[in-house]
Formats: sequence, C-alpha cells, structure tokens
Amino acid sequence: MNPSLPTYEDVVQASQRLEGIAHRTPVTTSSSLDARLGALVFFKCENFQRIGAFKFRGGYNALASLDSEQRKAGVVAFSSGNHAQAVALAARMLDIKATIVMPHDAPAAKKAATRGYGAQVVEYDRYKQNREEIAHGLVQAQGLTLIPPFNHPDVIAGQGTAVKELLEETGGLDMLFVPLGGGGLLSGSLLAAHAISPDCAVYGVEPEAGNDGWKSFHKGEIVGIDTPVSIADGALTQALGSLTFPIIRQHAHDIVTVSDQQLVQAMRFFAERMKMVVEPTGCLGAAAALSEIVPVKGKRIGVLLSGGNVDLAAYSAYLTAA
Amino acid sequence: MNPSLPTYEDVVQASQRLEGIAHRTPVTTSSSLDARLGALVFFKCENFQRIGAFKFRGGYNALASLDSEQRKAGVVAFSSGNHAQAVALAARMLDIKATIVMPHDAPAAKKAATRGYGAQVVEYDRYKQNREEIAHGLVQAQGLTLIPPFNHPDVIAGQGTAVKELLEETGGLDMLFVPLGGGGLLSGSLLAAHAISPDCAVYGVEPEAGNDGWKSFHKGEIVGIDTPVSIADGALTQALGSLTFPIIRQHAHDIVTVSDQQLVQAMRFFAERMKMVVEPTGCLGAAAALSEIVPVKGKRIGVLLSGGNVDLAAYSAYLTAA
Repeated sequence: MNPSLPTYEDVVQASQRLEGIAHRTPVTTSSSLDARLGALVFFKCENFQRIGAFKFRGGYNALASLDSEQRKAGVVAFSSGNHAQAVALAARMLDIKATIVMPHDAPAAKKAATRGYGAQVVEYDRYKQNREEIAHGLVQAQGLTLIPPFNHPDVIAGQGTAVKELLEETGGLDMLFVPLGGGGLLSGSLLAAHAISPDCAVYGVEPEAGNDGWKSFHKGEIVGIDTPVSIADGALTQALGSLTFPIIRQHAHDIVTVSDQQLVQAMRFFAERMKMVVEPTGCLGAAAALSEIVPVKGKRIGVLLSGGNVDLAAYSAYLTAA
Repeated sequence: MNPSLPTYEDVVQASQRLEGIAHRTPVTTSSSLDARLGALVFFKCENFQRIGAFKFRGGYNALASLDSEQRKAGVVAFSSGNHAQAVALAARMLDIKATIVMPHDAPAAKKAATRGYGAQVVEYDRYKQNREEIAHGLVQAQGLTLIPPFNHPDVIAGQGTAVKELLEETGGLDMLFVPLGGGGLLSGSLLAAHAISPDCAVYGVEPEAGNDGWKSFHKGEIVGIDTPVSIADGALTQALGSLTFPIIRQHAHDIVTVSDQQLVQAMRFFAERMKMVVEPTGCLGAAAALSEIVPVKGKRIGVLLSGGNVDLAAYSAYLTAA
C-alpha cells in the first residue's frame, strides 16, 4: 500500500484530537421513512456540526497537526464553501492566520461566514482562473501552508471520524451512503467502515452531472471531467485525488448517482418530516436511499448528511419549485 | 389549592408513562448566539418530538390514563393542529379509535398528517361554528371521551415533562421562555421548573395580537379576546383555561409578547444558523430571547421550541419575505 495513504489508525488519532472540539453530532431516525422503505435508516447529522458541515473535522485535524513554525506562518485553503469555513474556524481556534481562496460565485452566506471567522478571503473566477495556482502563489510568496480540501492524509483522517462515531452508536450496518465530491469524506468513511463494520457495503453518491467518481471507480484510474453543473455545489469537483481514489477503489462497494430533482425531494423530506435543513450536497447520500437507487429493503442503513449551509433564498426556491 | 389542579408529582408520573414512548428530544446551543447575547441559551427541541411537536406528550399521557371502558368507546379532540396529530398518533399506539374536530383552514399538512395517523377528521368553520359544541355533540351521541387541547390535568402534566428533561440536562436556569396559547405547555413547564429550579424566572410568550394571557395574568382573572390574527397558528386561543390560569398566575414570572416579524426573524435564525425548521408558534419563546424582550445578558436561559410543523409553501415565504 502507498505509504502516504492514511489508515484507520489516523482516523482514531484524529478522533482523539477532535474530542471535545468538534460536536459529536446526533444520529436521527424517521419511523415513517423506515415504514415506507421496510428498512432501518440512521442519519448522521453533520449539518449540526460546527460551521454546519463535516468539513470542520478534516480542517481542524490538519491544522492541529502542523508544527509551530507552520502555525506561525499561517495557512491557505481553496474551497467552494464549507472547507473554507472549516479552515477559517479551526485557524481561529488554534490562533493561526488563514487566507481562503474562494470562487466569486460561491453562496454569499458561505463567503460571509468565512470572513466572520476572521479569515482573509481572496476571490477568483472559477470559469477562468485556476484556484490551485492562486493558492500555490500565496504559498510561495508568503510561506503559507496549503490545506487542500480533500487530497491530504490529515483531512481524510479527520473526515473519517463522523462514520466512526456513527458506527459506534448504531453497531454494524449493511449499507452506508456517503456524498462524493473530491472523495475526502468518502475515503475517510471507508477507512472507518472497513475497520469497524467490514461487511458494510459503502456507496459513494455523486450528482448525475458530476459522475467522474463513477467513471474512475469503474475504469480503475482517475478520470477528469469538465466542471459539472448541479445544485450540489459542494460536489462540483472535476476529479478524485491521488490519495482519495486508491482508498475508494479498494474499499467502496460502488459509486451511484442521483439527479438534482432527487436532491430536492430529499431536502423537502428533511424539512417536512424531520425538521432539518440539509444543503443539496448534504442530501446526496440520503437521495440515494430515499429514491432506492439500490435495493434497501430489510437493511440497516447509514446515511451521512454532510452539511446544512444553503442560502435561504435558494433553499426556499427548492422547497417550493414544481 | 384547587384539588383538581395537577402537581409536579403528576409530571413525574407522566414522565414515567412517556419513558421509551416519547422522544427524549435534544437540547441544542449556538455559540454565535451566545456570543451575541452574552448569555448561555439552551434550546429544548420539541420540533424533533413525535408528530413534530410537544403535544404528543400531553396527548399520550391523557390517553394512557383512560380506563378500559373509555378506551373501548374511543376519544374525540378539537385542535387547530398539533394536538390533533398528538391524539391521533397516541390513539393508534394505544389501539383507541380517535375522532378529531379541526378548523377547515388548518394547515393542509396538519390535516393530512392527522388522517395519516388513522384518525377520522371532522372539519368546521372557525369563524362561524363552535368546535367545543361539535365535540360535545360527539361525546353525547357516541360516548366518546373528550381530550381537550390544554385544559386537562393529564394533558398539562404530560406537557411538563419537556421542561423536566431540559432542567435535568442543563441543571438550574435563570430564565425560561415558553410559548403560550391556551397555557397547557406553560402551566406544565411551571410545575416542573418550580420543583426542579425554583429560582428560575419563567416567562410565557404570546403573539402580540393574542395577548389574552398577558391581560389575564396582570388583571388576576381570565380575560377573553376575539380570535387573534397571527402567523403563530398554534397560539390563536381566545382565553386561558380554568386549570392553566391558576398555575400560571401563581408561578409565572411574567407574560411577554412578540411580533410576527420577530417570529420570522427567529425562524430564519434557526434555518440559517442552526439548520432546524421551527414553526411560527414554536418560535415564540425563542423570539423573546433573540429579540431581548427582557434583559438576558449574563443569564443561563432555557427556551422551549414547541414544534416544527409548517407548510413548506408558507415556510418558504417566511424565509424570504422582506
């Protein structure tokens, strides 16, 4: 195995670092949903995590792992949203200076929240500029440490702590549905699930328009696509990472896709029946289960709800669109 | 003291009856809100209760207290919404036939949910007909037992279990804000708070347009008003009850009111910052705290979020209205 790949032991260490720092988020259920599906579904509610998304886990774990010189120089991150807030908040908690490179069309609420956590925001045009180049420029000019959104061992290990908590609470599961963008959450979840509940079939769930993960998984190599268009704004990545792909390839049961309409139906289910706000990307795993993309009857099923950060105007439109 | 008034001992017994039946709902906090108010605020989330509201507690407790003959004949309830679903679900769980008298302009989601729980729904015009007369007619014709929405010792005792749970989790509080309609939740909460945290100042919170509780509390006798117009559709009662008023008069610190606009601001806060759907009536207590209707700085504050049942179309409009 590639020696730079994170392992379950790294997830356990991340879990210890996050103890009392990240919220141990609740696991919720719906008896009406269970009756409809003939299954038992457990939702791990990372929409209730600090900054409203699981990303805090990986961001904090990466920053807490820096040495004193790196902390003094500061960090830089590029992100379409939740990773930005995660690094910004973790940096403030650890007294580290943070610079965040964000697309200028990221949700206003996410940009405002990132600045609210005390980070400096550098905006770019996602259709014309390369965010990685901008971030690397800041690394070279100012000596900052880059905290990538998913392709980093400490980030992956941190994200895996959510599923570790879920499985400790539910015991073994038959299936687990996890949102898939760049693969940080999915690969971390796979490390945890493989160690704790090895018979659990773990599915990565992508938006239909952004099915690079499905292509890569079935081709056996990383396949890149153009920037996809979907309401799942946290899963608009063009390719899996060099660290996330091999873990996904090795341990995932399959990758499946859901439509934007299925994401909207899931959002409405959460608002109407479970009184929770879940963002479109956060509904990826849930939409696969609710729409029975794969047969779920008779199964004990985990679903990772990855976040709840959505502009209220956009959210209202999703709740009422025909 | 009036011998028919419920006591804290009745709340304790209700709590035992509801053990493993009602959800022990989570208590949530917001560090950004606490920073803004300079206070510690604990939200008791009855929007996550069965049927989406605290009403399940009182409804189930009342039905579970019936004798076998009453259970055989069935029950009838009149309700503008959540009490209807509460009695319907409790009846199904206890294998009792339920008839619910509901206003024809009650939220469609609430009527559908009530029927979904297997109850028979009898509709009436709230501006022309008297729901109590209709219900009493069914009592006489069919031998049903009436389960009133708030003015009943077992209902009051059941509602008090939410604040009992809250105080067991938080320890003593300085202040507690509770939504006030007919006073079932407030009077039950007062029994629990007075016994567990006797120095806690408990406030009932009404919509501005429906301030009969404030009038009654300060006049020292029950004052009736015309059916008020407010988005808080669960607090449109015209008068406190003969059982709820004396408990409120004896133990409440004060009654305060909030505007519909303050309710909307609270709803947006819960959606945007806490990822929770809370219905307008459910925001009454929160709106008082968030809008600092009384000084809250430096205090440990409990807030009862009473429910989360709101039509998605109406909810969307609240989230986006200017």
